[in-house]
Amino acid sequence: MSTNQRQATGQGLSNGMLEDNYPRNMWWVAARGDEVGEKPLARWLLEKPVVLYRLKDGTPVALDDRCPHRWAPLSAGRVVDDLLICPYHGIEFGSDGRCTRIPTQDTIPDSMRVRSYPLVESGAFVWIWMGDPEKIPACDPPVDMSYTADPNWSVVLGYYEVAVNWVLIRENVLDLTHIAYLHSKTFKQDDWASVPEVSMDGDTVTYRQDFDLGPLSPLFCHAMGFSETKSVKREQEGRMPSLAVSFSDWNVHDPEAQPGVRADFLMRGCHIVTPSQRGKTHYFWGAAFDIPNISTELCERTRASVTEAFDEDKALLEQLYAQVSMDPCGVDYPEIGRLGDTAGVRVRQVLQRKLAAEDRSLSG
Amino acid sequence: MSTNQRQATGQGLSNGMLEDNYPRNMWWVAARGDEVGEKPLARWLLEKPVVLYRLKDGTPVALDDRCPHRWAPLSAGRVVDDLLICPYHGIEFGSDGRCTRIPTQDTIPDSMRVRSYPLVESGAFVWIWMGDPEKIPACDPPVDMSYTADPNWSVVLGYYEVAVNWVLIRENVLDLTHIAYLHSKTFKQDDWASVPEVSMDGDTVTYRQDFDLGPLSPLFCHAMGFSETKSVKREQEGRMPSLAVSFSDWNVHDPEAQPGVRADFLMRGCHIVTPSQRGKTHYFWGAAFDIPNISTELCERTRASVTEAFDEDKALLEQLYAQVSMDPCGVDYPEIGRLGDTAGVRVRQVLQRKLAAEDRSLSG
Amino acid sequence: MSTNQRQATGQGLSNGMLEDNYPRNMWWVAARGDEVGEKPLARWLLEKPVVLYRLKDGTPVALDDRCPHRWAPLSAGRVVDDLLICPYHGIEFGSDGRCTRIPTQDTIPDSMRVRSYPLVESGAFVWIWMGDPEKIPACDPPVDMSYTADPNWSVVLGYYEVAVNWVLIRENVLDLTHIAYLHSKTFKQDDWASVPEVSMDGDTVTYRQDFDLGPLSPLFCHAMGFSETKSVKREQEGRMPSLAVSFSDWNVHDPEAQPGVRADFLMRGCHIVTPSQRGKTHYFWGAAFDIPNISTELCERTRASVTEAFDEDKALLEQLYAQVSMDPCGVDYPEIGRLGDTAGVRVRQVLQRKLAAEDRSLSG
Repeated sequence: MSTNQRQATGQGLSNGMLEDNYPRNMWWVAARGDEVGEKPLARWLLEKPVVLYRLKDGTPVALDDRCPHRWAPLSAGRVVDDLLICPYHGIEFGSDGRCTRIPTQDTIPDSMRVRSYPLVESGAFVWIWMGDPEKIPACDPPVDMSYTADPNWSVVLGYYEVAVNWVLIRENVLDLTHIAYLHSKTFKQDDWASVPEVSMDGDTVTYRQDFDLGPLSPLFCHAMGFSETKSVKREQEGRMPSLAVSFSDWNVHDPEAQPGVRADFLMRGCHIVTPSQRGKTHYFWGAAFDIPNISTELCERTRASVTEAFDEDKALLEQLYAQVSMDPCGVDYPEIGRLGDTAGVRVRQVLQRKLAAEDRSLSG
Repeated sequence: MSTNQRQATGQGLSNGMLEDNYPRNMWWVAARGDEVGEKPLARWLLEKPVVLYRLKDGTPVALDDRCPHRWAPLSAGRVVDDLLICPYHGIEFGSDGRCTRIPTQDTIPDSMRVRSYPLVESGAFVWIWMGDPEKIPACDPPVDMSYTADPNWSVVLGYYEVAVNWVLIRENVLDLTHIAYLHSKTFKQDDWASVPEVSMDGDTVTYRQDFDLGPLSPLFCHAMGFSETKSVKREQEGRMPSLAVSFSDWNVHDPEAQPGVRADFLMRGCHIVTPSQRGKTHYFWGAAFDIPNISTELCERTRASVTEAFDEDKALLEQLYAQVSMDPCGVDYPEIGRLGDTAGVRVRQVLQRKLAAEDRSLSG
Repeated sequence: MSTNQRQATGQGLSNGMLEDNYPRNMWWVAARGDEVGEKPLARWLLEKPVVLYRLKDGTPVALDDRCPHRWAPLSAGRVVDDLLICPYHGIEFGSDGRCTRIPTQDTIPDSMRVRSYPLVESGAFVWIWMGDPEKIPACDPPVDMSYTADPNWSVVLGYYEVAVNWVLIRENVLDLTHIAYLHSKTFKQDDWASVPEVSMDGDTVTYRQDFDLGPLSPLFCHAMGFSETKSVKREQEGRMPSLAVSFSDWNVHDPEAQPGVRADFLMRGCHIVTPSQRGKTHYFWGAAFDIPNISTELCERTRASVTEAFDEDKALLEQLYAQVSMDPCGVDYPEIGRLGDTAGVRVRQVLQRKLAAEDRSLSG
């Protein structure tokens, strides 16, 4: 039994969580669009220092955040006429990373350039490609996030830097059975008592689960106009179209809706993770309702209550990660699966395939 | 001369103070009993994260503080009906470390268990065995600390986490010639000017020394009812029955005591050290008088003055350890003995014997 | 072109900035003389903990800051009758590092001694030799700093501990083309738009440059008695007689000076760097005017404005260094030269010669 269960839940698939365990040849989210402006933004992405800024025509730009002359952080400089000027000796760079001016001399060596990274903006987010540019055509495009800028939706966004390996967050958000335990005082959605149905289509992992009539979590009921005691039907569907982002759809049906009154609502959660420095992860989250013009007050109430719940994840995962990092036995410790881990195990399978395609693998 | 002295004082016996230099097959103190209750206590012991709690019947329990499912710290969970519940997915464990329930499934793999550590409570302290359980019968039992809970004694206890290797504290408390220097303003017991007599019996190291009539340190005279100028006789005896604990007995005799009035008093210091994380040590200390019912006020006065003195040890040893740790030459530096180091050298001999018995040794 | 330029600017000469890249067989500045007194001063120099103090006759002393008995920091002790007393067990040392007393015993092993380092005091600074003492006669003596104590000069001194490798500061102060960019709001000396003339004589690197009539930086004009708009002529000459110190002479000429009134002034900057712990550098700076008795108010104004400007260097270099240190690619990154880097490249050549003479070299 125990051997079967190990196989069923993917034991033997390591999480590699103390290592460099992220694929490079894929699109990751670099920033929210509203973070990128004329003032350069410094950000560690995939263990590289990157500077992000925006041209006058609105195009976002990402360059290596290190001047090739004497390695000053370009993000400490400023943008003038679409050129990024090094704060140290005034060397200027265009959005393609090529040097356009070296003060005190007329010639510019070809080698005076920094790497420029392809970006794609979709909805509220800016995606970056930091791997081999030749692999772009053969790989999945960035995930469409246009709904986050669609006026038919009301969108609440948030951000954390979490001091853990990104896989810990990725597995956390794909297995909601933890809500009944870790979030018993915030989500108050204690009906996650059985294992969801999990399927895969290519590298897309999906889970779904139906719930009987019952109250909806106070995190989301108010924005939909329900009281905390109102009974509704619920279908939960999660989908991870990329290791970089997963969605968590809360499809809610009001069985008592009057004829002609809207009975069905959707809250689409999104969970975006991007490796930052070793042991740190950018975590962007969204809670979007398919309801236009939810009031600022209700949006802020949603933000506050979601933040309270996600603070619980951050605290637990950071304590977990710090403890494993400081423990001499590290990842050399049993890891025993449950039936409910299937989605997380699929994540590891996708991850290992992608790393293998880059001739890398996970140990530990 | 210098070669002889080196031999006499045990040069060549390394302290190994930047290494993992603690025996595993022995009892160490995990906590004071009053620290362990129904609420789980997280503590690093011998470089392992351990969770401690107490059953309803009062039995203390120690388990690995890492859930074998996804490695969450169990100490962040809670105890319900003597079961420790993981904060993340609600998996439950009994005091033997075996899993008793996995929410969302009916079967429990045998492998879903954590290590449970043997504990023994003696007086105010809880001892733990973290080595090979089969070695327990052949090794010394925990040191009897029952006097610390005996109503015929008045006991003051204290605790420090000290950022040093445990050997530095162990040697510090077995050589009181430093009192005249490091503690000249607190202990004010400047008559420690010669070398004590040191002996060994098995692994027990003992020192003793007699002192002529003179005032008793203000740290202890008040609890015994003496003024700071009152002259008394004193015999000091130290005893280390285990690397984990040593005692420092201050036997005081009042030569002017009236007939029928008590003339002899004992202050028994205890110094308990337990390795925590690398470079950190739990240091529990006690000052116990063989006098019942010393007033709370006098006990608090003793605590304050002992703390002031031990703060001096902590500050010096932490500065010493930090400096050696940051110095590229590390432990590759001369270490020259004094005649007064004999007890400390005996400690290293005991330590090296114990490590050799575990097929380990010290370098550095 | 790019290949030629690389050669012209010394590419291929590594900075080795994440390594131990300082020569040992040379004089470095240990402290300002006024920092060294009867109270022991703890200071990391060339990655060693050193204690500095002064004898009654004024002689400065430098010893290893680690007691050879049990490694306590001697700097936590005190000096009595020219003897440094260990804070832990009271062992006493003379200025030659030899032990003169061990409390509790009559004999003193020859080996109970610490290393004593040769010191030379010159002007406001104390130089130390931490290399092989036999190499002293064959090496350059300490640089004469006597002008810093000459009453014909008015001297302003400052100090920073900077969290960077010392070479970053050394190159920074030998290439003032960065003033127009990094210090545009403080120095306001934007005429550094061309490349200076650089020459070498032995290991001494020199640059010089003439400037047309124009206002003098507000950092220095006030102490010379000029307004911020007054036009003067300027010759800048920099000189690095040792890797430990460089000078920056601002020779100022007032073309409108009345006959019989002083027309020529000098501000001599000095930039002293000494490696501290790995990744940290002591940076002593001086701004000295060849004008006696400049008022305290004007000196303080100079100090404040120079500090404001040098804060900009510290902030940028520390951000640069931290970023390179945290970047997995480290120093494995292009470093492309400008024509203006010549003085800095000469520094690297001197450094590599000195390291080669010690059978060491730079990588990275």
